[in-house]
Amino acid sequence: MSNCLETLKTDIGDLVEITTKEEKTKSETKTSTTYKGTVMPCLKDDVIMIKMSSGYNAGIKKEKIEEIKILSAGETPKHVKTELNIKKEKKLKNISIISTGGTVASRVDYKTGAVHPAFTADDLIRAVPELLSIANISGKAVMNILSENMLPAYWKEVAEHIENEIKNGADGIVIAHGTDTMHYTASALQFMVKSNVPIILVGAQRSSDRPSSDAALNLIASTKFATEGLSGVYVLMHGENGDEYCYLHKSVKVRKLHSSRRDAFKSVNAQPVAKMNMLSKNKKTNEKDYKIEYIADERELKQNITDNSSNVEINTNLEEKVALLKIYPGINSDILKYYTDNGYKGIILEGTGLGHAPETLFNGIKYAIDNGLLVAMTTQTINGRVNMNVYSNGVELQKMGVISCEDMSAETALVKMMYLLANYNLEEVKELIGKNTVGEITKFSLIDLN
Amino acid sequence: MSNCLETLKTDIGDLVEITTKEEKTKSETKTSTTYKGTVMPCLKDDVIMIKMSSGYNAGIKKEKIEEIKILSAGETPKHVKTELNIKKEKKLKNISIISTGGTVASRVDYKTGAVHPAFTADDLIRAVPELLSIANISGKAVMNILSENMLPAYWKEVAEHIENEIKNGADGIVIAHGTDTMHYTASALQFMVKSNVPIILVGAQRSSDRPSSDAALNLIASTKFATEGLSGVYVLMHGENGDEYCYLHKSVKVRKLHSSRRDAFKSVNAQPVAKMNMLSKNKKTNEKDYKIEYIADERELKQNITDNSSNVEINTNLEEKVALLKIYPGINSDILKYYTDNGYKGIILEGTGLGHAPETLFNGIKYAIDNGLLVAMTTQTINGRVNMNVYSNGVELQKMGVISCEDMSAETALVKMMYLLANYNLEEVKELIGKNTVGEITKFSLIDLN
Repeated sequence: MSNCLETLKTDIGDLVEITTKEEKTKSETKTSTTYKGTVMPCLKDDVIMIKMSSGYNAGIKKEKIEEIKILSAGETPKHVKTELNIKKEKKLKNISIISTGGTVASRVDYKTGAVHPAFTADDLIRAVPELLSIANISGKAVMNILSENMLPAYWKEVAEHIENEIKNGADGIVIAHGTDTMHYTASALQFMVKSNVPIILVGAQRSSDRPSSDAALNLIASTKFATEGLSGVYVLMHGENGDEYCYLHKSVKVRKLHSSRRDAFKSVNAQPVAKMNMLSKNKKTNEKDYKIEYIADERELKQNITDNSSNVEINTNLEEKVALLKIYPGINSDILKYYTDNGYKGIILEGTGLGHAPETLFNGIKYAIDNGLLVAMTTQTINGRVNMNVYSNGVELQKMGVISCEDMSAETALVKMMYLLANYNLEEVKELIGKNTVGEITKFSLIDLN
Repeated sequence: MSNCLETLKTDIGDLVEITTKEEKTKSETKTSTTYKGTVMPCLKDDVIMIKMSSGYNAGIKKEKIEEIKILSAGETPKHVKTELNIKKEKKLKNISIISTGGTVASRVDYKTGAVHPAFTADDLIRAVPELLSIANISGKAVMNILSENMLPAYWKEVAEHIENEIKNGADGIVIAHGTDTMHYTASALQFMVKSNVPIILVGAQRSSDRPSSDAALNLIASTKFATEGLSGVYVLMHGENGDEYCYLHKSVKVRKLHSSRRDAFKSVNAQPVAKMNMLSKNKKTNEKDYKIEYIADERELKQNITDNSSNVEINTNLEEKVALLKIYPGINSDILKYYTDNGYKGIILEGTGLGHAPETLFNGIKYAIDNGLLVAMTTQTINGRVNMNVYSNGVELQKMGVISCEDMSAETALVKMMYLLANYNLEEVKELIGKNTVGEITKFSLIDLN
C-alpha cells in the first residue's frame, strides 16, 4: 500500500473538499478547482484519490493541492489492516483476479456501502461474497489507472503478471480493467499470451455505490467463466442495459460502442462466444441463478484443454512506432510524410466504406510505403469488411502496397501490427497482417453482399 | 459530354479488356493490371470508365493504358443522343436531381439493362419511369466522383448548384452521392445552405445491374420526400437489408455503419426522422406502394415552410486546416505539435469512452491550445455522449480548454469546426462548437446514464 496520505492531515474515509492551486492558462487568467468526496486508499505516492458523490473517482496530484478541508472525519475501513483467513477448497479451481484499476475495481462493496476501492482478494470477497462459492480467489492490484491512460508498456506488465499467476497455479485469470481501452488491452493480451488458461477482462460502466452498478454481477460472471476451461482471452460485460444477462466476447472481435450504457461492449463482425443468464432467485436479496449458454462451439473453445496442467508462454515485444490514422475528406497527404520522417514503422488507415482513401492521399501513402513502412487498411464503418477489389480506388491502393485487414477492427489491427512488427521481418508481417492468426479475422461470408 | 473515347478505338457499350502499362514499384518489380468490363460514357477527358462484371465501375487513366482488346462490340445507347420531351405538369412539384457520382448514379437502368451511367434527367426517367408520376424532374451531373475522393472544395460546388437550382424554381433537391462520405457532405450542406427547400442526399450500396440493387427504390423514395416540403438536409437509404422500407435521416445525425449492407446508414444518438414503407403492389412487376410514416414531429420538420416561395442563402466559407485525430493507447503527443506548427486552426479529438485522452497526450493538447488552436472532444464509441465532468481525466482536459462536442459525431464535428472557424472569431467558435445550431447536438437525456 502506498502512502500518499502520510504528509496530509486526512485519512481514508474522510469527507473532504480539496481545492487546487490557481493555474494560469492562456485563455482564462486563473483557474482553480474544488473537488468534494471521500478519501480513498492511495496507489501512488503523489496522488490523493477521492470518491465523488457522482460515484466516480478523482485523482489529484498532491503538488497541485492548495487546501484540504475535512468536512467530516471517516472511519478507516478495518479490513485494510486485517486479513481474511479463507482456506482453499480442493474441489474449487484457483482463480486470480488482477486489478488494473477502472470503475469495476473502484468500489465493489455494494452490500456494506463502505467507501474504498476493492483491490485485494479480501476486499473483493467482502464486497462480493458469492465469489467464494465459485472458486478459490486470490487477488492482486498491479496498477490503479483509468484505462484512458493505458499504454502499451502497461499491457506488457499485465502479461507478465498473468504469466506469474499461471505459473503459480492459477486455473483462470480475471482482469479488472477500465472500459475505455479494455478492448485494446484484450487484443494485446491475446497476441502476447499463449496459454490454455482462460483470461477474462471485466469492467463496469457504473461504480458499485450506484444502485445501477454492473460491477458485482460482471465480476461474478467473469469469475464463473474463468473456471470453465476456455482457452484464449475474452471480455465480459453486460449484454443488455438491465441485469438479465452478460456476454462473453472474443478479445479481438469486441469494441466499446457506447460511452455510458452498461451493454457498451459489442462483438463486431462476430457473435459473442457465450451468454451468462442471470435469473432472479430471490428478488429481496437480489440473489441470482447463473446459467451459461454457449453461442460458439463449446468444444472448440475448450479444445486446447487437453490435460490438467496449465501452460503459459508470453512474448511482450511490441513495436510502438505504429500510428492509427482515420481518413476524412480534406485530410492532408503530408501527415503520412510526417509519420514516415519520424521513424514510424507502420500505419493502420481507418478508411471509408470498403477501405478507401482519397486520391489526394495517394502521394503520402506511396511515400510511406516506398520508405519501408507497412500500411494496412481497416474501415471506419466499424461493421462489415474491407474489400479493396471492387472500386478503382481500392485497386489503386492495393497496387501501391496497402494491405487489407479484412473484417478486423482498426483497434485490433493497430495492436496486431505493433506485435507483428516487433517479432517478424517486414515480408512476414505483410503475409500475416491480413490473415487470421488468433481469431481476429473471420472468413469472408457472402451474407455481407446480399 | 466529355470525349475520353475520341482517340481510342472503342465506344460505349463495347465489352473490353484493358491492360495497364507495367509499373515499377519498390516491393514488387513490375505490375500491370487487366480490367474486363463494358465501356461507359466518359466524364473526364483523360479517364476511360468501364463497368465490370461485379457491377462496379473502374476508371482507368488513358495514359496508363497499354492495350485495349475489344471482346465484343456494343451498341451505343440511343438516348445519349436523343432527348425526351416531357411536359411539366403544373400540379406536380419541380424536383432537381443533382448527381455527384457514386454507385446510385452509375447505372440505374434496372429495366432495360443498358450499360451507362444515368446522369441526365432523361437517363434517370428512362431508368426509373416512376419518377415522372412523383414530380417534374430535372437533372444535372455536376461531377462524377467516387465519394471517397470528395473534398471540402466539392462540397462548396454542390452548395452552389443547389442555390442555382432553387433560384431557378426547384421545390426540392435530390443529390445522388457515393456512400463512403455521404454523411460528411450532408453535414457540410446543412451548415452551408439555409433554405426552406428540402435537400435529400441519396446513395446506393449495390449498382443497379445487380438484382439486389437499392438504387431505384432509394431514388424514388428520396424524390418523394423531396416533394414533402421538409426544410433541412437529409440522407435517404434503405432501412433494412430487404426492400421493405427506407429511412430518412437527419444530415447531421447519420453515419455509415457498415461497409456493404444496404442499410449501412444509421441515425446515431437520434431516431431517423421518417420511414418510407414500400409495400409490394404487384410481385411480378415489382411495383410498390409507397407510404410515408413520420417518426419525428411532422409539423416541426415542415415549420419553416410558411409560404409557397422558396428561399435560399448559402455560405460556403470553410477553414480546411482542421484535423480529425483518433486517440489510441500509445499515441504520441508530438502529433499535436505537428498540427500546431503546420498552421492548423483546430483539432477534433475522437477520444475514448466519455471523451478522454491519455495523460501522455496532455502536453501536446496544451501546446495546441496555447498556440490558439481550438481543440474539441468527440467519442470513438460512436454511440452515447461525451461527458468530461465525471472522471478526473475529462476534468483536466476541460481545464486545459478542450471543449465537449456532447453527442455530436466526430464526422459532423469536423465539418462544423471547418465551417465555424471560417465564419466566426475564436471566442464565438468556442461558444458554438458544443451548442446545438442545426440539430447536430441533442439534449442530454438521463436514459443514457441508466
